[in-house]
Amino acid sequence: MSPERYNRIREMLRMRQTDLTVLMEEVHKPHNVSAVVRSCDAVGIHEIHAVWDKKTRLRRGTAMGSQNWVKTHSHDTISDAIGHLKGQGMQVLVTHLSDTAVDFRDIDYTKPTAIILGQEKYGATDVAIEQADQDIVIPMVGMVQSLNVSVAAALILYEAQRQRQQANMYDKQNVSEAECQRILFEGGFP
Amino acid sequence: MSPERYNRIREMLRMRQTDLTVLMEEVHKPHNVSAVVRSCDAVGIHEIHAVWDKKTRLRRGTAMGSQNWVKTHSHDTISDAIGHLKGQGMQVLVTHLSDTAVDFRDIDYTKPTAIILGQEKYGATDVAIEQADQDIVIPMVGMVQSLNVSVAAALILYEAQRQRQQANMYDKQNVSEAECQRILFEGGFP
Ligand SMILES: C[S@@+](CC[C@H](N)C(=O)[O-])C[C@H]1O[C@@H](n2cnc3c(N)ncnc32)[C@H](O)[C@@H]1O
Ligand SMILES: C[S@@+](CC[C@H](N)C(=O)[O-])C[C@H]1O[C@@H](n2cnc3c(N)ncnc32)[C@H](O)[C@@H]1O
Repeated sequence: MSPERYNRIREMLRMRQTDLTVLMEEVHKPHNVSAVVRSCDAVGIHEIHAVWDKKTRLRRGTAMGSQNWVKTHSHDTISDAIGHLKGQGMQVLVTHLSDTAVDFRDIDYTKPTAIILGQEKYGATDVAIEQADQDIVIPMVGMVQSLNVSVAAALILYEAQRQRQQANMYDKQNVSEAECQRILFEGGFP
Repeated sequence: MSPERYNRIREMLRMRQTDLTVLMEEVHKPHNVSAVVRSCDAVGIHEIHAVWDKKTRLRRGTAMGSQNWVKTHSHDTISDAIGHLKGQGMQVLVTHLSDTAVDFRDIDYTKPTAIILGQEKYGATDVAIEQADQDIVIPMVGMVQSLNVSVAAALILYEAQRQRQQANMYDKQNVSEAECQRILFEGGFP
C-alpha cells in the first residue's frame, strides 16, 4: 500500500462516528442502497444495519458491491435490529411522514443515534414505527408526497454531521487501534 | 377540483421560490432526474433548467414523467442556460469537487440562485465551471469520491430552504396571480 493510501485510510478511520448509524428496512432498489451507503461513508458512518426483503437478500452481493468501507450488519427481523441498536444505547429514530413526527432538524444527533429508513413504496413498517423512540420528518412544501429514500437519508445524516462537527466529535478517534490495524491490513471490510 | 385539492395547490403556489433553481447538465439516469425534481418540488422550486445529452433528449418524456408541478426549461447548450440565468440576475453556483471550492453551507442562498449539477460520471463540464460564479462542494470524510447527484442536489437545496425559511422568504407569494390561475386551471404544467 502506498503511503498516500495508508494515510488516506488512517484519516478516514480517525473520523469514523461509531455511534451514528442507519437501519435500512427493506430498501430494495440497488441504486438507492448504493446512494445511502455512499452518503454514510461521506459523513463517517462505520457500520450500517439492514433488514432485507427476500428478493434483495438473494442479490445482496450486487446491491452492496464495492461498498466495503462501510460494514453492513444484516438482521433477520426489524425487531431484532431495533433491539440490537437499543442494546447499544442508541436513540432509534424512524423516518415517518406523519403529522405528529418531529422536524428532523429538532433532533440532537450528538447522542448515539440510529435512523430507520423505510421501503421505497410502503415506508417503514408499523413494527418499526411502534418500537422506535421517535418519528422524524423532513418538511416539504410541494405537491409530491415524499422524497427519494436516499435523499431523505442524506439530509438527516448531514444534519447529524453538522451538529457533530460543531461539537468537535470528528476530532477524536472512535475506532479502536486494533480494528484500524485489521482494516488497514485487509484493505476494507470483507 | 375538490376544495381540498384547490387549497393544496394554492398553498403550494404561495410557497414557490421563483428565484431559486437548479440547472442539470446532462444528468441522464431517469431515477436521478426524478429524485432531483422531487426534491425541487419539496423545497418550493417552481422551474428547473436542463441541458440534455442526445440520448436523454430522445427519451425525455419518460425521464420527466409525472413531474408536472415543476416546469422544466430545456436549453441547447450550457452557455445558453448560464446566460439565461445570469440574465435573470442569479448567482450561478457549480457543484465541483475541487480543493478551491467553497463549502456549500458558506453560501448565501437568500440571493437569487441557480445551482449547476453535473453528469453522473464526469461531473460538470469545463465550460460550466468557467462560466459559473462560484464552485461549491459538500464536505466528505470517507473513502468514496463523490455523492450521488440527487443526494448532492437535495443537500444544497435544503440548506437554501433553511436559510430562506429563516429569512421569512416562504411568507410572501412570488408567483403572479395570473400564473396561479392558469396553473390551477390546467392542473399543472403541460
Ligand atoms: C418514498 S418514501 C415512502 C413513502 C410511503 N408512501 C410513506 O408514506 O412512508 C421511502 C422512505 O424515504 C424516506 N422519506 C421520504 N420522504 C421523507 C420525508 N419527507 N421525511 C422523512 N423521511 C422521508 C423514509 O425513510 C421513507 O420510508
Ligand atoms: C457523481 S458526481 C461526478 C463525479 C465526477 N467524477 C467529478 O469529479 O465531478 C455527479 C454530480 O454530483 C454532484 N456531487 C456529487 N458529490 C458532490 C459533492 N461532494 N459536492 C458537490 N457536488 C457533488 C455534482 O453535481 C456532480 O457533478
